[in-house]
Amino acid sequence: MGRRTVFYVSDETGVTAETLGSSLMTQFDNQAFQRVTVPFVSTPDKAREVMRTINATGRRDGCRPIVFSSLVESELREIVAESDAFFLDFFEAFLGPLEDELGMPSAHATGRAHGVVDLQSYDRRIEATNFALANDDGISPEAYGRADLILVGVSRSGKTPTCLYLALQYGIFAANFPLTEEEFEGRGLASALAEHREKLYGLTISSERLEDIRRARRPGSRYAAPPQVSYEVRQAEALFARYGIPHVDTTRCSIEEIASRILDRTGLQRRVLP
Amino acid sequence: MGRRTVFYVSDETGVTAETLGSSLMTQFDNQAFQRVTVPFVSTPDKAREVMRTINATGRRDGCRPIVFSSLVESELREIVAESDAFFLDFFEAFLGPLEDELGMPSAHATGRAHGVVDLQSYDRRIEATNFALANDDGISPEAYGRADLILVGVSRSGKTPTCLYLALQYGIFAANFPLTEEEFEGRGLASALAEHREKLYGLTISSERLEDIRRARRPGSRYAAPPQVSYEVRQAEALFARYGIPHVDTTRCSIEEIASRILDRTGLQRRVLP
Repeated sequence: MGRRTVFYVSDETGVTAETLGSSLMTQFDNQAFQRVTVPFVSTPDKAREVMRTINATGRRDGCRPIVFSSLVESELREIVAESDAFFLDFFEAFLGPLEDELGMPSAHATGRAHGVVDLQSYDRRIEATNFALANDDGISPEAYGRADLILVGVSRSGKTPTCLYLALQYGIFAANFPLTEEEFEGRGLASALAEHREKLYGLTISSERLEDIRRARRPGSRYAAPPQVSYEVRQAEALFARYGIPHVDTTRCSIEEIASRILDRTGLQRRVLP
Repeated sequence: MGRRTVFYVSDETGVTAETLGSSLMTQFDNQAFQRVTVPFVSTPDKAREVMRTINATGRRDGCRPIVFSSLVESELREIVAESDAFFLDFFEAFLGPLEDELGMPSAHATGRAHGVVDLQSYDRRIEATNFALANDDGISPEAYGRADLILVGVSRSGKTPTCLYLALQYGIFAANFPLTEEEFEGRGLASALAEHREKLYGLTISSERLEDIRRARRPGSRYAAPPQVSYEVRQAEALFARYGIPHVDTTRCSIEEIASRILDRTGLQRRVLP
């Protein structure tokens, strides 16, 4: 008997079905499942094709697949629901109760969740991404006036991925500035940072984890050596304490967790929602 | 009467609740709602605080809020469910049926969906992001051997955000290479690209949309002028046709749609799931 297969079926990108299904499957032993995303199932023909694929997979695996679906159109949903599978549809479960609560029918329209419904929020995400790239690693601090947030931390503490995630996911303008010898030993904040103290947020990380990350990047270097790494981490934390800069420990955090903690603690408004 | 408020409540990042709740709300007129994300509701005290906030908001708005919750622990969920709100919980709806189907209890553990459960997939996302940054805009084509995918297109057709999204969301190693005069007028593919033809994927875009995007960036420039823009778009499309490079029109696509279409058509495996 093979591994059981989990399908994420959607009439659009599949992001909603993947998010829902992954969240649920992490509550079980998620190593034991194969995962297949089937996006853009937008016609009855495609729905029937998916049904055949699901059935064939179940026969191959020797047990029926699990299908997480986010099919807005009930016609398509009914076709896929006919598969020999354990079928959970996200819209079916929630759209009806929500229509009743709001006292209005839903649009039952596809492509709204992760399509370009709103060109303005699309543009904002792209602008924010460009801003993050243009303001990565301390480049062009003269643009900090436009920043919503400036992340500070030592090299490889997670600044760049966090800025990019905040931009792509939430349209937030996040710059980042690396803490180096320039700021350490009580020399204080660079003037570009001092001017925008209320926008600063620190990232810190355990020395052990940072050594691992740096060693993978530059094995045998001073950059990755334990004394240098722990010196930098200590100095960065001293700087956060000295200037009262709020900070988060990224050691055991995912990018999503770092981003959510920062938004939660700063109260920064998401400019767009996923 | 104020606008109705939608809460996304989670015992972890809130990404699941936001993604699912937003998908549902886009089926209604989503301009009419205020949105509030409340992440890291991990103790009964915090749950009670959220309940009080929800109730106060309902009184202020003059109508009861909508709460999308992804609270894994039933104790916390029951507290928030007591709010005077329309309450939908994703785990409550699906976890029980899924336990029955799988014939095993779920872990009921928080921080699994978007926490660092699996350091390896976390590292892969970070590596992929570093790869995208190091291989943006035609930098270091010598690394294309490691790429899963190389996006080609004219300036501002959406290459960079797509690469970053593929990296952060799915751990995919995506490089991008800008098409310029070098490749046009039948001069053919740069040798770095010709060597990796099977990894190429083209992005195209309507001239009108590209003019808008470029004008916002460099108003009055030749770069944004209609003849130049339509020349570049035509030439890029001719190149895709000549070399049989699959491509997607990004004009009306969100980043998620571009990414999903590419993964769907290339059959590239997601290296991690959200």
